[in-house]
Amino acid sequence: MTDAPPSALTHLDSDGRARMVDVGGKDVTDRTATASARFLTRPDVVALVRADDLPKADVLATARIAGIQGAKRTSDLIPLCHPLDLSSVSVDFDFDESSIVVSATAKTRGRTGVEMEALTAVAIAGLTLHDMVKAVDPEAILDDLKLVEKTGGKRGHWTRNA
Amino acid sequence: MTDAPPSALTHLDSDGRARMVDVGGKDVTDRTATASARFLTRPDVVALVRADDLPKADVLATARIAGIQGAKRTSDLIPLCHPLDLSSVSVDFDFDESSIVVSATAKTRGRTGVEMEALTAVAIAGLTLHDMVKAVDPEAILDDLKLVEKTGGKRGHWTRNA
Amino acid sequence: MTDAPPSALTHLDSDGRARMVDVGGKDVTDRTATASARFLTRPDVVALVRADDLPKADVLATARIAGIQGAKRTSDLIPLCHPLDLSSVSVDFDFDESSIVVSATAKTRGRTGVEMEALTAVAIAGLTLHDMVKAVDPEAILDDLKLVEKTGGKRGHWTRNA
Amino acid sequence: MTDAPPSALTHLDSDGRARMVDVGGKDVTDRTATASARFLTRPDVVALVRADDLPKADVLATARIAGIQGAKRTSDLIPLCHPLDLSSVSVDFDFDESSIVVSATAKTRGRTGVEMEALTAVAIAGLTLHDMVKAVDPEAILDDLKLVEKTGGKRGHWTRNA
Amino acid sequence: MTDAPPSALTHLDSDGRARMVDVGGKDVTDRTATASARFLTRPDVVALVRADDLPKADVLATARIAGIQGAKRTSDLIPLCHPLDLSSVSVDFDFDESSIVVSATAKTRGRTGVEMEALTAVAIAGLTLHDMVKAVDPEAILDDLKLVEKTGGKRGHWTRNA
Amino acid sequence: MTDAPPSALTHLDSDGRARMVDVGGKDVTDRTATASARFLTRPDVVALVRADDLPKADVLATARIAGIQGAKRTSDLIPLCHPLDLSSVSVDFDFDESSIVVSATAKTRGRTGVEMEALTAVAIAGLTLHDMVKAVDPEAILDDLKLVEKTGGKRGHWTRNA
Repeated sequence: MTDAPPSALTHLDSDGRARMVDVGGKDVTDRTATASARFLTRPDVVALVRADDLPKADVLATARIAGIQGAKRTSDLIPLCHPLDLSSVSVDFDFDESSIVVSATAKTRGRTGVEMEALTAVAIAGLTLHDMVKAVDPEAILDDLKLVEKTGGKRGHWTRNA
Repeated sequence: MTDAPPSALTHLDSDGRARMVDVGGKDVTDRTATASARFLTRPDVVALVRADDLPKADVLATARIAGIQGAKRTSDLIPLCHPLDLSSVSVDFDFDESSIVVSATAKTRGRTGVEMEALTAVAIAGLTLHDMVKAVDPEAILDDLKLVEKTGGKRGHWTRNA
Repeated sequence: MTDAPPSALTHLDSDGRARMVDVGGKDVTDRTATASARFLTRPDVVALVRADDLPKADVLATARIAGIQGAKRTSDLIPLCHPLDLSSVSVDFDFDESSIVVSATAKTRGRTGVEMEALTAVAIAGLTLHDMVKAVDPEAILDDLKLVEKTGGKRGHWTRNA
Repeated sequence: MTDAPPSALTHLDSDGRARMVDVGGKDVTDRTATASARFLTRPDVVALVRADDLPKADVLATARIAGIQGAKRTSDLIPLCHPLDLSSVSVDFDFDESSIVVSATAKTRGRTGVEMEALTAVAIAGLTLHDMVKAVDPEAILDDLKLVEKTGGKRGHWTRNA
Repeated sequence: MTDAPPSALTHLDSDGRARMVDVGGKDVTDRTATASARFLTRPDVVALVRADDLPKADVLATARIAGIQGAKRTSDLIPLCHPLDLSSVSVDFDFDESSIVVSATAKTRGRTGVEMEALTAVAIAGLTLHDMVKAVDPEAILDDLKLVEKTGGKRGHWTRNA
Repeated sequence: MTDAPPSALTHLDSDGRARMVDVGGKDVTDRTATASARFLTRPDVVALVRADDLPKADVLATARIAGIQGAKRTSDLIPLCHPLDLSSVSVDFDFDESSIVVSATAKTRGRTGVEMEALTAVAIAGLTLHDMVKAVDPEAILDDLKLVEKTGGKRGHWTRNA
């Protein structure tokens, strides 16, 4: 896939006009995608967020729910994305001293891939972390938002180069 | 603002439960926020996107509209954000050899800041670029999504440390 | 179904984290669900609402349309619900002296049930009645919102115990 | 308020047609509303949900976030409700042996009350509990959804009769 | 207003890029707008729709509710429209032998006009009529969708030339 | 299709009540629909909009994106429309001296037609033109919004009478 010729952008017609490309002829297959990003903040803020592992703190649950709901709204947010019936979405968090890794996996059985759904879930979960911590760390950064892996469709299994 | 004590996260009550904090007592002031991110791809893909400067190519217009509409949906996407009446939103793009800088500025006259609206505009515009180029560059990355500057509210003018 | 062991809640993973469970492996079958609730108010208010049976009064039509549109937004409102393509929705009202029974039936052909769509249709139709009558009866109550019957899926036909 | 003459329903014009009534002439005041409902299930299901008080279980956080987001969508869900800028929303849960009490408080500073926002928050949080437990207790009931108290506006403080 | 010089389009910046123009400096005034359109069909279809004047037919109520809800979503549908808090919306229908006139009036107290809200209400109500009658008259036409009158804002009262 | 007896409207039950009709028994076929409208304005305004053919003007791209996104929201806007997974949408513009023809084509593979999706795309793109030019031409009119052609489903190919 990475050596696909960077010919025309598929979302444009021959006049350069945006359109929702026709996926009616593509095969219905099981498709999955995983995306991730790194939320960079301060060690004391990571500690505040991790307190969510303790009883009664809703920070990560709020970001996770926002990410899942964001995935379901992908075709409403990204103009040329096709609507599709997601069969599952999950959002996870990992920690190191001064950052939080957000990752999401989306699945469907359909004619078009779920890369954008996984990326949108991560972005919205990350923005929710921004919102939660912005009063204590306005300098926080959502970094390195990218596709990690995908399966299904004509090209089959794709994994990001290390 | 950056030296605010990283005490409790304001979006949680004393039991750690998520809530939409009460902004009813805050002053109505003019508020602005600017955010940015960098979309990392390949030089040939930047060239394809820049062809949008030529007649009849809709790539950047599509991402710009998506970003503006995303800003208007911020309180619907980020669970604890307050609804507010945006008085303006703009989204801009700058280029270097292998990346596209996305930036957005949001304004309102109200009781709560527009940082999340500016960040959401940039994120959704960036995700739309991901969607546009993912067939030719699945390795593209949205990097360094951050608040750049804000004005209004109790803390007044804040600019990111260089 | 009622004697299913109340083991773990299926919407949580083994760590207790919320997720949209994977329904990709479930069979595509015809599925229906019916839900109902009782809106308790005063006899004079029931009479006002029933005037809708006469020409030119839109109370029940407004609640019915709200319920149908609510059913279509179920996966947007209930965080862990799967999007699905409803094949039909209907909302009905019955009256006795001081209450209005709201019921709804939803159908789909898919991998996941429509219980939540039927319940959401009834809830939104009932809230619309609340809105309509709240100036004359702020004490009104939406009571007994429940699933009545469902068909399709692995468990087949389920009817509420009398 | 309860002895207001049950004359015409205010959401209908003199021909009985639905309309969004004109609130342009009403005063801008601080307004609050509190609503509640009771989710009836089995003791073993209450125990499963309460495990959410322990680390790593997201049931109540999911329902709370759904309720808060639902409140923000009230005017989109209830056809004749006015859009308004909520200044705060909170959702709480209390338990007894076989039921969960859901309550919500909404606030605004505006020309129209927030009763429907509080009721919608409770309804959507309650529906999310339905969704969470429906596999183990399809017989669960959301009962007694009602307005508890309101302040602000022409009628001032109203409290439900005991 | 009609003799305003057709200089640059205000929704574009000096580079021709779309933006949500800054209305922060505009006065808060009461603003109203009325729009209308004509739905052209056959006499027998008008008769079917008018049967809605009789008990138990929901055609016009459905179109009216759709129009009111559409008005509330204007800023979500039209990319460069500002969000605003509508204080009222009404949708009306008039009939002649083979057409139905749809009209809508929207009001707000704010910094920007409600022309688009009135036009959107009429368009969505008209599309709902299309949907209702398309099985019996696929040739139906929504014609002459236009602004009729507006008040408020810098330009004051404007009425369409006859 | 045009000589179908104008019996009952299919969106009403035998009591005249609105419902989402059951399409569960209809065949899954490829379905397309094309709709169009004419936006009437002044020659100088057409010239301003056509400047979009030159570099750096976003008018038509904005209207096109709005139309595509509007098509995806059809079932959310038109109360009795079924949700469906669009496989493609395109929006086009043609010009003569004082008008702009807007047309849209929608496709799906499913149980129900896409007439309303094509009509909604045209209406929302046309409303966006209204919004863009209303400061220079408040007298502009969206005229002649109609279905042009459809394929698929029980009735097969239908073309509008000339």
